[in-house]
Amino acid sequence: LADPQSTFDLVVEHMRDTTKLETTSALLEWDDHTYLPSGGGAYRAEQVTFLSGLIHQRRTTKQLGTWLEELATSELAAQRETPVGAAIAGWLRDYRRQVRLPQALVEAIARATSLGQQAWVAARSADRWSDFLPHLREIINLRRQEAQLLSDDGQLYDALLDQYEEGARTAEITSMFAELRDELVKLLKELKDASSKPSGQSWRYAIPLPEQRQASRWIASQIGYDFERGRLDETAHPFCTTLGPNDCRILTRYHEDNFPSGFYSTLHEAGHGLYEQGLPIDWFGLPPGAAASLGVHESQSRLWENFVGRSAPFWRWCFPQLKQRFGTAWNELDAMQLFRDANLVQPSLVRVEADEVTYNLHILIRFELEQELINGDLKVEDAPQAWNDRYERYLGIKPQTDRDGILQDVHWSAGLIGYFPTYTLGNLYAAQLMDAMRADLGNVDDLLENGNFDGLLQWLRDKIHVHGRCLPPDQLIRRTTGRAISAQPLVAYLRQKLEVAYSMV
Amino acid sequence: LADPQSTFDLVVEHMRDTTKLETTSALLEWDDHTYLPSGGGAYRAEQVTFLSGLIHQRRTTKQLGTWLEELATSELAAQRETPVGAAIAGWLRDYRRQVRLPQALVEAIARATSLGQQAWVAARSADRWSDFLPHLREIINLRRQEAQLLSDDGQLYDALLDQYEEGARTAEITSMFAELRDELVKLLKELKDASSKPSGQSWRYAIPLPEQRQASRWIASQIGYDFERGRLDETAHPFCTTLGPNDCRILTRYHEDNFPSGFYSTLHEAGHGLYEQGLPIDWFGLPPGAAASLGVHESQSRLWENFVGRSAPFWRWCFPQLKQRFGTAWNELDAMQLFRDANLVQPSLVRVEADEVTYNLHILIRFELEQELINGDLKVEDAPQAWNDRYERYLGIKPQTDRDGILQDVHWSAGLIGYFPTYTLGNLYAAQLMDAMRADLGNVDDLLENGNFDGLLQWLRDKIHVHGRCLPPDQLIRRTTGRAISAQPLVAYLRQKLEVAYSMV
Repeated sequence: LADPQSTFDLVVEHMRDTTKLETTSALLEWDDHTYLPSGGGAYRAEQVTFLSGLIHQRRTTKQLGTWLEELATSELAAQRETPVGAAIAGWLRDYRRQVRLPQALVEAIARATSLGQQAWVAARSADRWSDFLPHLREIINLRRQEAQLLSDDGQLYDALLDQYEEGARTAEITSMFAELRDELVKLLKELKDASSKPSGQSWRYAIPLPEQRQASRWIASQIGYDFERGRLDETAHPFCTTLGPNDCRILTRYHEDNFPSGFYSTLHEAGHGLYEQGLPIDWFGLPPGAAASLGVHESQSRLWENFVGRSAPFWRWCFPQLKQRFGTAWNELDAMQLFRDANLVQPSLVRVEADEVTYNLHILIRFELEQELINGDLKVEDAPQAWNDRYERYLGIKPQTDRDGILQDVHWSAGLIGYFPTYTLGNLYAAQLMDAMRADLGNVDDLLENGNFDGLLQWLRDKIHVHGRCLPPDQLIRRTTGRAISAQPLVAYLRQKLEVAYSMV
Repeated sequence: LADPQSTFDLVVEHMRDTTKLETTSALLEWDDHTYLPSGGGAYRAEQVTFLSGLIHQRRTTKQLGTWLEELATSELAAQRETPVGAAIAGWLRDYRRQVRLPQALVEAIARATSLGQQAWVAARSADRWSDFLPHLREIINLRRQEAQLLSDDGQLYDALLDQYEEGARTAEITSMFAELRDELVKLLKELKDASSKPSGQSWRYAIPLPEQRQASRWIASQIGYDFERGRLDETAHPFCTTLGPNDCRILTRYHEDNFPSGFYSTLHEAGHGLYEQGLPIDWFGLPPGAAASLGVHESQSRLWENFVGRSAPFWRWCFPQLKQRFGTAWNELDAMQLFRDANLVQPSLVRVEADEVTYNLHILIRFELEQELINGDLKVEDAPQAWNDRYERYLGIKPQTDRDGILQDVHWSAGLIGYFPTYTLGNLYAAQLMDAMRADLGNVDDLLENGNFDGLLQWLRDKIHVHGRCLPPDQLIRRTTGRAISAQPLVAYLRQKLEVAYSMV
């Protein structure tokens, strides 16, 4: 019998090689979203599909299974929280999941989602739902098949959710959402009745795109995003992707008359980028070098976007810097107005531009609809109507176009179903992390007011980033913040900030 | 026994899948030359290396060998010039070559050349030969090993040359070069003694980069390059790469005070791009859908760059169009001056900016040096001195820096040894093609003077592009032009044009 360390080394080599294919496939997708010529889409889907088949073969090879079963009973697996133990646990989890899926299904999903994303871009741009409908129908159908293969208890949505957030369960999230929703709806009503409100006007000032681009690069650098190990490009739906241990790329989009759209999506994606750039590089491509979960990932992006980027001390530091870059455009504004406008709460149609209160209602809508789609309770052709009805019910407004409705998000076109709830989990995690950081550092507002982000980043590196995927997400957050996940810290944070922004104190 | 058509179909599928990996690898390299973050180089080399191993496995699998041997004796192989027959012949040729190479060597070459190109970019930029020396030593060593495995007769350089130009032999090229060199040296002397010479001054007029970029996109579109099936980007050393049947990308570079550098490198790369975009799309990834050879490829790029782009009728059409785009920059110029300056002949240090007469002397120098390097007659550390000496001998000028000397070309860093002579072959082919086109079309100069390039492109499509790799290159050129390859058409073309440009008539 081989000694476990030798077996471990063999698996490491196998996984690192597999990661080379995965990151190559990620480049194919990054290029698809940025520079691919319009005629190149169909073949790109073929390339991605072929690679997905190769990757699946490597992830499910019998030899790998033998090695992993050997490791599972070895002393190396005993210590679940050491990198080696965590690596084995992560591999086993992934392997047992993957071997349930036939290669043909994996390839079909890769093809459908590559073509689906291309179709989504065109359908969204033309506001033509009917062009996207057959793609979404196919994607839902395939992901439903996948869930059936993965699920032991018939809870299809759980099987998908678990892929993005290890250990999360629909029932728990539903109850956490209910508590959060009640609190947010109450807060929303109070804000609606407030005597003094932010106007939101400062955000409508036109800023030319070249200056927006420079501002985005600047703020990403300021918070610590390393451009020698990353890039910033433009695309239809902002995202962050990792193509190598020193190559994590972020993408954003700009609108001349909507400065915060590009600015905050850059801060958001740079937050994701900081997490990726902070993962242990020696473990790249292995569980200890991977993100803990999508919820934890989102906690990082939302922390920088909102908890930092929409705070008063941040704007006291940032305003004069941006004002200087923008010529005379912001001459009549001041830091406090920008802070207040950054915290204007009002129901709106587009999730990525929603305020921090209503944002979670957008997520709730998607969470409910995608459960119904996967469970077969909602037909895909009826989804736009269901979407619009739900917006009216939860937010009191109704999309006039599918572009501002069901076509707004890339996720479903990319097969990402069960993914949305991790956004709200991320908000909850971020609130708890911020409380813990304040308790540890003491002077967070002073640091923000001086544009000194090093201390915050270092705290996140030490508490979250270095641990990679060594702990399941809820354990990682619980241990770091000293409390169980709940809606209260997020609600308390929002109340406290919005009382200032709305001059209610 | 399976019927040959079924076997053929199996090989087609196998090859098309292999092409998906090859084009994916080409994207990794394109990205390396354009958008890869500076820290991403080492991992990129690992990705490219791993893919090269997978590709080599697929190219040399025993099953493929069995299929090919079966096809070789079937009736499908009988007609060498049909697409099916040509496909089988091409596959056999490639397979028999590839199976001689161990995977470890193929991977070592991929790694060394990926790192080598990155090192070359940095060494060239810093003008520091010593940083590149160890890389080149390794590359020469590996390519020499490859040549030893491929060669049956000990002619190492032939074995490399044959990879780029099927059937070409060092001895024949040497004698063709000798004839060409004697003619060119004679012509060079006459031009040196001419009473009236182009000044070259118009080319020094500064044109801002944004206008150069637009001019490049414009001229590429004008000659027929399809931007829905391609892109134009910027890089250190211009090239053209195919990432899919509808995705052929060209890359150029710009210098504010050297307009022709960017303009002609765009025309050159667009010429390559037109060839790729004109290959039979249904045969993509198979020999009938592939370029005939590098020499034929270069004939297309040089035809558009020089035979079209440096002609008097082209400038009569192009000058007013560009003048209008450049504000007042070209106000004091006229079409004839640009034509004459585009044909100024004078020995210079940098190949890609050399005139059409001295260009081939630059190639001769590389052709001689790389034979010596591969045969072991020249040590890599002595190459800069040998390079400089040869420039003094053939061109009468000596580089003052390695940046303008041995570090100027990307090729050796990419392992491309035996590649340079195809550039001069391309010039010879282009001259013959142009004569044949003039004979067929009659009114080529009228078409050029009206900026009507469709007829030229269609002729090239019909005579060259549609044939893919169905004929060996020299047969393709011989059949299309009705004569054997020789130096005479090129010399006659140069004499005729330069007599006008130098006002000697």
